[in-house]
Amino acid sequence: MRGAMRIPFTKMHGLGNDFVVLDGRNGSLPAMSPPVAKALADRKTGIGCDQLIMLEPSDAADFRMRIFNADGGEVEACGNASRAVALLHGQPARVETSGGVIALEPLDGGARVDMGTPRFGWEDIPLAYAMDTASMPVSWESLENPAAVNVGNPHVIFFVEDPYAVELDRLGPLIETDPLFPARVNVNVASIADGAITLRVWERGVGLTRACGTGACATAVAAIAHKGVTSPVTVHLPGGDLEIAWEQGGTILMTGPATTSFTGSFEWSDFAGDAT
Amino acid sequence: MRGAMRIPFTKMHGLGNDFVVLDGRNGSLPAMSPPVAKALADRKTGIGCDQLIMLEPSDAADFRMRIFNADGGEVEACGNASRAVALLHGQPARVETSGGVIALEPLDGGARVDMGTPRFGWEDIPLAYAMDTASMPVSWESLENPAAVNVGNPHVIFFVEDPYAVELDRLGPLIETDPLFPARVNVNVASIADGAITLRVWERGVGLTRACGTGACATAVAAIAHKGVTSPVTVHLPGGDLEIAWEQGGTILMTGPATTSFTGSFEWSDFAGDAT
Repeated sequence: MRGAMRIPFTKMHGLGNDFVVLDGRNGSLPAMSPPVAKALADRKTGIGCDQLIMLEPSDAADFRMRIFNADGGEVEACGNASRAVALLHGQPARVETSGGVIALEPLDGGARVDMGTPRFGWEDIPLAYAMDTASMPVSWESLENPAAVNVGNPHVIFFVEDPYAVELDRLGPLIETDPLFPARVNVNVASIADGAITLRVWERGVGLTRACGTGACATAVAAIAHKGVTSPVTVHLPGGDLEIAWEQGGTILMTGPATTSFTGSFEWSDFAGDAT
Repeated sequence: MRGAMRIPFTKMHGLGNDFVVLDGRNGSLPAMSPPVAKALADRKTGIGCDQLIMLEPSDAADFRMRIFNADGGEVEACGNASRAVALLHGQPARVETSGGVIALEPLDGGARVDMGTPRFGWEDIPLAYAMDTASMPVSWESLENPAAVNVGNPHVIFFVEDPYAVELDRLGPLIETDPLFPARVNVNVASIADGAITLRVWERGVGLTRACGTGACATAVAAIAHKGVTSPVTVHLPGGDLEIAWEQGGTILMTGPATTSFTGSFEWSDFAGDAT
């Protein structure tokens, strides 16, 4: 005998980065676990998504957002997911994440998200030992002297001539898992031209993606802080554009699109087995 | 201004071959087109599936089943989809397909499908010119002398020592698009041991899949007709097992699992633009 519990969800995407959002803002959802998140994220036998988003009650903000990658692992922050959640919520909100509290504001067809304050300290990234995070004295083949920024999750940014000439599918996993990064790292390769940024991202635990919101934030911050780029800056990603605004000492504002693809519901016991 | 039309759907799979099923048995659905099917099948920005299944009214049977591949192209038959539709319908039914009328019977956790009578004539496959379809005098590298069977769609079957040793991802598309097959062809590589079949399939217009129901039918029929295998026969596919029964002159009975993953609804104009 399995107890019947029908769970509604919303399928959304931001620049092609897609999410299953489970709305437990009123405390109605059972606890999520990595195996259930992985089963729901399966594109053939589950609902299918890059990230599963759980909205839960919060004591520190209007609600809490938890993010599970398709492999079941929980991560701190996802800029694209934040815009999708803003669209779903439909009004400005402060949201608790394990990367800090962020502020969301829905716009027509998307959202503006205050992603909080970037951190530049080597122990904030985190790195395994002290070094200059504006231009790290390290290299992986032709990729050298990255900047490092933590925007709720850890990023390194390589400024190069042509991001599309970099073998990011091969170098990304090498850098992600280098012992220099105790929490692993997201790998950004970017170029700057005419005041705008062109960016490709190898996402920690995910791989190459069409668009990484936190990568766009981290790269824009590094370009403004270390490369003389003016805020706000447009970031061209394979999936589309984001606009990032940031001034020294302030918080990062990310503006971009979000879309609802469809809504649905599933039977909790089909994915959680007899756990409930 | 776009008119609002909410379309319900059921997401199902058979051995990991997954479907979005739109139920227009009562004539309630707008006409499907390849671009809309392709948009709905997109796994990031649509619902995501291998095949989109449209159920429509029929004058020739209880209802009609139309099948669109993820690339938008319409195909004649899909064994796994037939089992899913049987589960959805919930009672025995005769179903019109562009490959012929088939009979469905739901079982606990799956279905039995009468896939109709196989055809062995070279013009029925179709081939470009006359030859023996029990052992065709042709080869592609180490793959030689296939059998050919039409089970609502065209198949060639290569009996080999070890299907998993065949570079099917490279040879499949070469064979699929060979001018010998005017309607292209599904490519099966199979071994026979202890009265059972182990099978891998390169599906026309799709590629390598976890399980191809019509491939299992075509391969079992070829093994029974030409290789002395006894009916019923178990077919081991990467996604799981099917049981196929067939006697000379009769119809093919395929028995196997089907599963409902979730249900949902989408806004027609989000995927059809201003077409409605």
